[in-house]
Amino acid sequence: MSRRVLLGGGVAAAGVAGIGWGAATLTHREHHTDPAARTVPFFGAHQSGIDTEPQDQCAFVGFDLVPGTDRADIIGLLRIWTDDAARLTQGRPALADTEAELAARPARLTITVGFGPGLFTAAALEHARPHWLKALPPFTIDRLEEAYTGADLLLQICADEATTVSHAVRVLCKNVTSLVRVRWVQRGFRNASEGQSMRNLMGSVDGTVNIASGVDFDRLVWDDGTGLPWLAGGTSMVLRRIAMDLDTWDELDDDGRELSVGRRVANGAPLTGTGEFDDPDFEAVDDTGIPVIPPSSHIARAHHSTDGERFLRRGYNYDDAPAPGTVSNSGLLFACFQRDIDAQYLPVQQRLADFDALNQWTTPIGSAVFAIPPGVPKPGGYLGQPLFEG
Amino acid sequence: MSRRVLLGGGVAAAGVAGIGWGAATLTHREHHTDPAARTVPFFGAHQSGIDTEPQDQCAFVGFDLVPGTDRADIIGLLRIWTDDAARLTQGRPALADTEAELAARPARLTITVGFGPGLFTAAALEHARPHWLKALPPFTIDRLEEAYTGADLLLQICADEATTVSHAVRVLCKNVTSLVRVRWVQRGFRNASEGQSMRNLMGSVDGTVNIASGVDFDRLVWDDGTGLPWLAGGTSMVLRRIAMDLDTWDELDDDGRELSVGRRVANGAPLTGTGEFDDPDFEAVDDTGIPVIPPSSHIARAHHSTDGERFLRRGYNYDDAPAPGTVSNSGLLFACFQRDIDAQYLPVQQRLADFDALNQWTTPIGSAVFAIPPGVPKPGGYLGQPLFEG
Ligand code: HEM
Ligand code: HEM
Repeated sequence: MSRRVLLGGGVAAAGVAGIGWGAATLTHREHHTDPAARTVPFFGAHQSGIDTEPQDQCAFVGFDLVPGTDRADIIGLLRIWTDDAARLTQGRPALADTEAELAARPARLTITVGFGPGLFTAAALEHARPHWLKALPPFTIDRLEEAYTGADLLLQICADEATTVSHAVRVLCKNVTSLVRVRWVQRGFRNASEGQSMRNLMGSVDGTVNIASGVDFDRLVWDDGTGLPWLAGGTSMVLRRIAMDLDTWDELDDDGRELSVGRRVANGAPLTGTGEFDDPDFEAVDDTGIPVIPPSSHIARAHHSTDGERFLRRGYNYDDAPAPGTVSNSGLLFACFQRDIDAQYLPVQQRLADFDALNQWTTPIGSAVFAIPPGVPKPGGYLGQPLFEG
Repeated sequence: MSRRVLLGGGVAAAGVAGIGWGAATLTHREHHTDPAARTVPFFGAHQSGIDTEPQDQCAFVGFDLVPGTDRADIIGLLRIWTDDAARLTQGRPALADTEAELAARPARLTITVGFGPGLFTAAALEHARPHWLKALPPFTIDRLEEAYTGADLLLQICADEATTVSHAVRVLCKNVTSLVRVRWVQRGFRNASEGQSMRNLMGSVDGTVNIASGVDFDRLVWDDGTGLPWLAGGTSMVLRRIAMDLDTWDELDDDGRELSVGRRVANGAPLTGTGEFDDPDFEAVDDTGIPVIPPSSHIARAHHSTDGERFLRRGYNYDDAPAPGTVSNSGLLFACFQRDIDAQYLPVQQRLADFDALNQWTTPIGSAVFAIPPGVPKPGGYLGQPLFEG
């Protein structure tokens, strides 16, 4: 089964080497006159919403399984979600969709499902749990809030229109209330143009250095089933809610910001280059022998020290209603995908936790990890089927 | 001064009779290849964001004046906001904009300022307060929450991109924290295509019958300064946060919904017509003499009984994170504009409060009213200048 999943679909591997989403995800893009009518395929070797060019709007929903929920219940829920997602992403109403008309504008909707550690316990499938699927170790920078931390199940729902996201969230949540409780809903947004990455709410161009080509995806993102056959075509996700202290960030001038990030404010170019996609030169020094990109800067610290430390970043800005007496409640919903959290993500996160010039203005306040099962190769299957029937 | 304001700008009066926003607001629309680059003029006889074709994203921000704030303080704040808005709406950073690059995608940004009743008290301008500018009378349907009710000052910030809205909200809030406190931030969204109104989260086509032509705006929306010269070119706004009980609404079938609204679910046509923009015939009866559009339906109750009961509706959907144990926290940020709240809005709202089939599923939980000063005719002036210097 896992081999079939792995080999079944050819949707994602565009095989085009290139920079940015445009190149990697051409096959996931259809060009309609009305952007509201565009769809992303649901069936395939991989779930969509990962190698899909990021949509403008997103909701991450974390669920707790109701105590007593067992394997059969979970399979039932995943069958419902699979059917809902297969329809909604193609602009068709879900079964018994009570706001069927809201399904008519898919706007590149993708629905991506993830399994938290607790799901494997509830389903009595501990032996099939990836070794990296566990709460991240505590970092000294963390100020995690219970309300945004952990979850047994994840839905990542992205579309270019907020109404589409809203409708999909409701459809997927309301039919399963006997099995799961919503633990958190985190909404985000990002806006980019062709050839220019989004900006985060600190004003920085964000998402420049990323995994783009089909080849990188196969090596760094998509699991090949060697360790756990059921996971072939799947991956893992880390979701961190990172608050930005914009009030103190705003006291910093552009020079200070550029030295903290390692890139130019104006266009996101590395301090050693002129264009956003120029390769940073971490060895370059100025006349006095001082590194042009400070070793303490975010990109110097975050840069992979080996090829095996790379992962796909696909985060969203958040900006919620501020607490009384304050002005902003903003930050980044940092989301990344990789085959192995321990091997690829943790060394980078540990390095940033040990030191990162940006830490002065950013605080992780939520954290969750998920196994992302492979896609459903064709109608009739359901998300996670290789795990439950493998 | 007020005459100058009234006669100064020719931006808004398109003078084109037509249905829907497209016709009324052609002059407020520029067609660029990149939608992120489109701008709406700031200077003019009227503030933008009212006769502007509604953008996809919106934040309504309500402020309380800090005790002790006086007329000079308020003028200072309005000068800052005017300068910020004049720049940001044209894709230029605000003065001392610490995330200047986030200003580069105006995406049809409009920034609209409103004055709550408390502002007139603080500024010792009670004599210039419009008679209709007071908290709405209590309605039996109301379950108002303090957190969403009232405010001394309003910002309505709309754009097609969420990042643009987010940046504008922050710029406008952060420089005035010594004078005002944010009381509430209410974010909303709406998505429509050319020739088709948006849908609200009950799934209904919403916004069909509205004020569209330049002539209607002059008669029903824009004040002509007869009562209060300073208000010439201005208007009033009612903002109601109306929660939807989607769980019980979802138990109702399409027939029940159509009888409650008076319009078809599929395309928003009145029950007596076939297209969204067909005129409803409230007199039509079926073979058995029963009215085709039930007199208890929302549109029968809301329909103006005289021409003077009409107003401009420009609301947004909201969908916030649900409370623990629930699935949805959604509704409508009902926003409407009219010359005279008492004469135009109140009779309709009273009729709906007395009876409206929709009341079973909708509950007003927030309420605020504002005087919307005229636009700033040209650089150098500031929002509200005719009030303070009239
Ligand atoms: C609020 C928190 C964060 C902000 C504002 C932020 C911002 C940025 C920015 C502006 C860049 C440069 C442009 C780019 O290549 O995307 C960048 C790069 C990067 N960030 Fe972050 N980041 C944050 C958190 C994180 C976290 C938690 C991680 C991983 C643990 C991470 C990993 C990376 C990596 C791997 C790069 C590329 C480095 C390179 O090779 O050049 N970032 N980030
Ligand atoms: C959550 C609450 C509400 C919902 C879901 C709602 C929904 C709708 C819908 C679907 C229509 C028909 C399409 C259209 O012409 O836009 C409509 C019409 C209308 N609504 Fe509402 N509405 C709500 C609250 C209100 C309130 C509070 C008022 C005013 C006090 C109002 C005034 C009107 C008016 C004047 C019309 C046009 C009636 C006509 O002449 O045909 N609505 N509304």
